[in-house]
Amino acid sequence: MKSFQEVFEKIKGGEVKRIAVAAAADRPVLEAVKAAIDSGLAEADLVGDEAGIREIAAKIGLNLELVRVIHQPDPRAAALEAVRLVHNKEAQAVMKGLVGSADFLRAVLNKECGLRTGKTLSSVAVVKTESIDRFLLITDGGMVMYPTLEEKVHLLENTVPVCRALEIENPKAAAVCAVEVVNPDMQATLDAAALTQMSRRGQIKGIAVEGPLALDNALNPEAAAHKKITGEVAGKADVLLMPDIEAGNIMYKSLVYGAKAQTCALIMGAAAPIIMTSRADSPETKLNSIAVALLTEVK
Amino acid sequence: MKSFQEVFEKIKGGEVKRIAVAAAADRPVLEAVKAAIDSGLAEADLVGDEAGIREIAAKIGLNLELVRVIHQPDPRAAALEAVRLVHNKEAQAVMKGLVGSADFLRAVLNKECGLRTGKTLSSVAVVKTESIDRFLLITDGGMVMYPTLEEKVHLLENTVPVCRALEIENPKAAAVCAVEVVNPDMQATLDAAALTQMSRRGQIKGIAVEGPLALDNALNPEAAAHKKITGEVAGKADVLLMPDIEAGNIMYKSLVYGAKAQTCALIMGAAAPIIMTSRADSPETKLNSIAVALLTEVK
Repeated sequence: MKSFQEVFEKIKGGEVKRIAVAAAADRPVLEAVKAAIDSGLAEADLVGDEAGIREIAAKIGLNLELVRVIHQPDPRAAALEAVRLVHNKEAQAVMKGLVGSADFLRAVLNKECGLRTGKTLSSVAVVKTESIDRFLLITDGGMVMYPTLEEKVHLLENTVPVCRALEIENPKAAAVCAVEVVNPDMQATLDAAALTQMSRRGQIKGIAVEGPLALDNALNPEAAAHKKITGEVAGKADVLLMPDIEAGNIMYKSLVYGAKAQTCALIMGAAAPIIMTSRADSPETKLNSIAVALLTEVK
Repeated sequence: MKSFQEVFEKIKGGEVKRIAVAAAADRPVLEAVKAAIDSGLAEADLVGDEAGIREIAAKIGLNLELVRVIHQPDPRAAALEAVRLVHNKEAQAVMKGLVGSADFLRAVLNKECGLRTGKTLSSVAVVKTESIDRFLLITDGGMVMYPTLEEKVHLLENTVPVCRALEIENPKAAAVCAVEVVNPDMQATLDAAALTQMSRRGQIKGIAVEGPLALDNALNPEAAAHKKITGEVAGKADVLLMPDIEAGNIMYKSLVYGAKAQTCALIMGAAAPIIMTSRADSPETKLNSIAVALLTEVK
């Protein structure tokens, strides 16, 4: 797939999916839920303060006959209940509402009714710009600050279900650095070399990894050829593993503000996709995030 | 100024400037020199192997009557001679040709005839995208790998002459991080806070500095207002100080490949601008770099 519109079409062609929203009495979140329902993408379980939900729903024109409202005024208990719905397969993805991130993630990782898998939770952003003819997945610009080598393996593997949802066959990941040579003074290049060999040895599942690559030779076949870098990843990367949260966050935002990119952002690594949009995200980004989350199956 | 075209016009309206090219018998470099001469932007002193220069000049149609050729077949000696021309004010900027970067920079830093100032040499990229209505200066995506706080002061001050050349009045720099709050676990945010106070105390010359700022609230006034960040820099930054070379390099390249940005890149910190284009740079980038270098006066 090459556009979020194709994502929407694919969802509409499949079984109806549900999102469970934790502490749903939050206007921007309910606006995103309304957009998803209005677009025919999702049904929703809204867990939260019922009076608050009804008040916002009336203001924004969200028809509550199309959703299930579960009254739970305590944000932490609401988070746990929303997560439990996904744990019990009643919903396919969980979305954070008006509850603190730490409390929300604690519910996600709850040992009895949560979505814990033992993997590191990480942020996966999906980006589409006009000048690049494919989706790019960027990890991690929002969750893991300075990933260790072991965490980088999780970050990479966490992108695989999203690649599958987007019908990216044989996904390819570039371990992106400032240079394409191994430099002992640049830890990211040492990690990239290790990840490449781990990939060759079958230690990273579901995705081919190559690095160090600079962003130009990760994305652009001519730039890769210019540097005489061969292999299946260079110039054709789908997934861009960033050295750290600063590079990831800055790259994502530079494409949003500098290239008017269309985007979505998920938290992966749990037993189901997690939607944690930020208030600064555009309505389109929130809708895209719900759509990609509902299409993403964690196996 | 809001476009490289305006830069070209300003140069054409002023005194004729000269670049000195070190080890000039290099086709891509001579093509850039030819473009600058043909555009009426510059005159040139070509230091290098005369036979090689003449051969390339004939192939690409560079009229050698418009330039001065100084025969020096040894690349290191050629670098030193080119730098000496700038040291003696016979040329206004020096450009690297077919000489290794280390040898070239050694000539730049030569104590007798070089351009040493005591400041750290750093890379300054100038970027223009369609969706942002001003030039952005990015530092440092190519020279200083992991700048210390003291080096970050140099990086910031090194952008000031470029801001002046581009007629950016009261330049504003954002110390860009992944977040806009000070987090003791994120060194870049601690440095950003220190730089902000150093700026307020007059310890950084010629530019107002504020941070930590995430890229959205550095660039976009609404994003800054959304986070309730006030002050003269947030949302209006001209200069983006990157936490390290990875973030800087990746941001620059994401705008080139994701937003088809028009760019230029200089090395600053010496007594005159230094042009070190890479083979992967487009002809436009090389021409822009010569133009901005010739407009940039180090005081």
